[in-house]
Amino acid sequence: MTSHTEQSAVTVLGLGPMGRALTGAFLDAGLRTTVWNRTPGKDRELVERGAVSAGSPEEAVAASGLTVVCVVNYDAADAIVRRGAVADALKGRTVVNLTADTPDRAREAAAWAAERGIGYLDGAIMTPTTTIGTPAGVFLYSGPEELYRRHRPALDALGGAHTHLGEDIGRAAAYDIALLDIFWTAMAGYAHALAVARAEGVSARELAPFAKGIGAILPPIFERSAEDVDGGGYSGEGNPITSAVSSMAHIVHASEAHGIDAGVMRAAEGLARRAIGRGHGADGFLRITEILNPR
Amino acid sequence: MTSHTEQSAVTVLGLGPMGRALTGAFLDAGLRTTVWNRTPGKDRELVERGAVSAGSPEEAVAASGLTVVCVVNYDAADAIVRRGAVADALKGRTVVNLTADTPDRAREAAAWAAERGIGYLDGAIMTPTTTIGTPAGVFLYSGPEELYRRHRPALDALGGAHTHLGEDIGRAAAYDIALLDIFWTAMAGYAHALAVARAEGVSARELAPFAKGIGAILPPIFERSAEDVDGGGYSGEGNPITSAVSSMAHIVHASEAHGIDAGVMRAAEGLARRAIGRGHGADGFLRITEILNPR
Ligand SMILES: NC(=O)c1ccc[n+]([C@@H]2O[C@H](COP(=O)([O-])OP(=O)(O)OC[C@H]3O[C@@H](n4cnc5c(N)ncnc54)[C@H](OP(=O)(O)O)[C@@H]3O)[C@@H](O)[C@H]2O)c1
Ligand SMILES: NC(=O)c1ccc[n+]([C@@H]2O[C@H](COP(=O)([O-])OP(=O)(O)OC[C@H]3O[C@@H](n4cnc5c(N)ncnc54)[C@H](OP(=O)(O)O)[C@@H]3O)[C@@H](O)[C@H]2O)c1
Repeated sequence: MTSHTEQSAVTVLGLGPMGRALTGAFLDAGLRTTVWNRTPGKDRELVERGAVSAGSPEEAVAASGLTVVCVVNYDAADAIVRRGAVADALKGRTVVNLTADTPDRAREAAAWAAERGIGYLDGAIMTPTTTIGTPAGVFLYSGPEELYRRHRPALDALGGAHTHLGEDIGRAAAYDIALLDIFWTAMAGYAHALAVARAEGVSARELAPFAKGIGAILPPIFERSAEDVDGGGYSGEGNPITSAVSSMAHIVHASEAHGIDAGVMRAAEGLARRAIGRGHGADGFLRITEILNPR
Repeated sequence: MTSHTEQSAVTVLGLGPMGRALTGAFLDAGLRTTVWNRTPGKDRELVERGAVSAGSPEEAVAASGLTVVCVVNYDAADAIVRRGAVADALKGRTVVNLTADTPDRAREAAAWAAERGIGYLDGAIMTPTTTIGTPAGVFLYSGPEELYRRHRPALDALGGAHTHLGEDIGRAAAYDIALLDIFWTAMAGYAHALAVARAEGVSARELAPFAKGIGAILPPIFERSAEDVDGGGYSGEGNPITSAVSSMAHIVHASEAHGIDAGVMRAAEGLARRAIGRGHGADGFLRITEILNPR
């Protein structure tokens, strides 16, 4: 059972850039915030702002009804949370794991927590550290609705939009994986574009206004194509995959002519060529979702 | 020498989705528009709207002072424009080649045109067919400024924003390659995300609002990072490449656990791991531009 103090209190385990941002937002909202990090010293500035520095993770989790874990991955989270003393101290309390990993790891962690009487919610943060505590933050959760409701007031201190995706604990991680897939693939494309542009004498600053324009056309395409994709129809009207593959070949060619590795684009082009080879050349590029995951 | 009629007239070679959209905009602006396409019959609707259908490409280019070429690539453009009769008819006239290809091909085509007394501008269209004739269109040009100025009134009929990037004829293609690199890589990421999401029971429609959010954070990142990249500094503050690579590994793992090819992400992850291996783990992800194209 947690005391009243513990209910308006929160513990943060992990003080990387994101853990520090989360702690800052909890402090700004006036919550009693206890922190711990594997490597000491990262809490200095936070302690100046009012955070309580715990000497051990078990001491940290004992201070609050809610513990937020935010470390690099579940191997790291497990290395902290599954120590005997920490697991014992967590009994009857709640963990919200804002560490990113795969849906399988979230399911496995929830099963572990359930066996030990630990409340467990998985979460994913979809926006950078600078958005934490602002309206721009985006947080996804999955797991027991009741737990989500109970801790929502504390989580609201993080600002932004919070969505509970359902009771299946793997759901937040599934969304996270898919959304980071879009993000990091796009960033890889941007990095490659900058490398090729530089080889052609075009600076990042010169390219930036147009790159922004390309970024801006993506959201409406994501929106418009969703129905098409769910229905298994992939209209190529206005932009068939044969035209896309021609652009991709130009990119590979121009890149490799400058000695710049084009492996990312080559992999994407290969998928498109497989779709064309199976007779879908008149379809749109998103037909490759069916090459990747045939229904 | 072109007559007055020829100056307020334009010819479009190539009636794929983009060539048809361009023709539609020229017609809407009241220009006398002559069209030709390798495969006959694609001009039917355009002729109903007032376009003049030419029986051959040489007849088509002879009808106007300005010929816009828009076909799948430069092999296709050359197959049309370099026929003897067409080249002869183009002498003293201008070609604006809105066909996408590499900077080298644009340079080579300009040299060919110069030898034959043909004015030559290269261009690139950065937005979909639906934007043509609207304020949303984005057009890039490179080549002789004087030619660009002369034909700007006709090109303005296409709507949107027109930018002359300089006299170096390869510049429009260089921007085009870089921008399409961002676009198609991001689309490959989106397709892969949809495939993995579906395997996890998440539909494209469920993912769409969040995917849009990811798309929306890209333009400010492109903008903010440009100076960093030009200066060779790659701040990882708030998001080091070690954290990125951990997400990438989760994506590869979750994808392959469902039997979904993760070759695009594997290639991107490999670049990030090379950057880390060279001691840049605390830098930001865009450090990989230096792996791709060391200065
Ligand atoms: N940064 C962002 O913009 C952002 C955005 C959305 C989501 N996220 C997610 O938030 C989580 C945290 O990210 P981050 O940006 O703070 O940086 P990070 O580099 O992903 O994580 C750093 C944290 O992990 C800890 N850690 C690493 N290995 C450990 C281990 N074996 N045992 C215990 N602790 C370990 C570090 O402790 P030490 O200090 O002792 O090394 C530090 O507290 C990640 O899952 C990330 O994907 C981050
Ligand atoms: N669609 C878009 O949203 C978009 C956006 C920006 C830029 N672009 C660029 O615009 C250009 C045209 O694209 P598009 O969308 O209209 O479709 P496309 O499929 O790229 O090109 C189709 C056109 O190319 C012609 N063609 C192909 N091979 C030929 C050959 N060997 N000889 C002569 N003509 C040949 C086709 O003639 P047939 O009808 O005889 O096959 C048709 O006119 C491309 O360079 C593309 O990258 C398109």
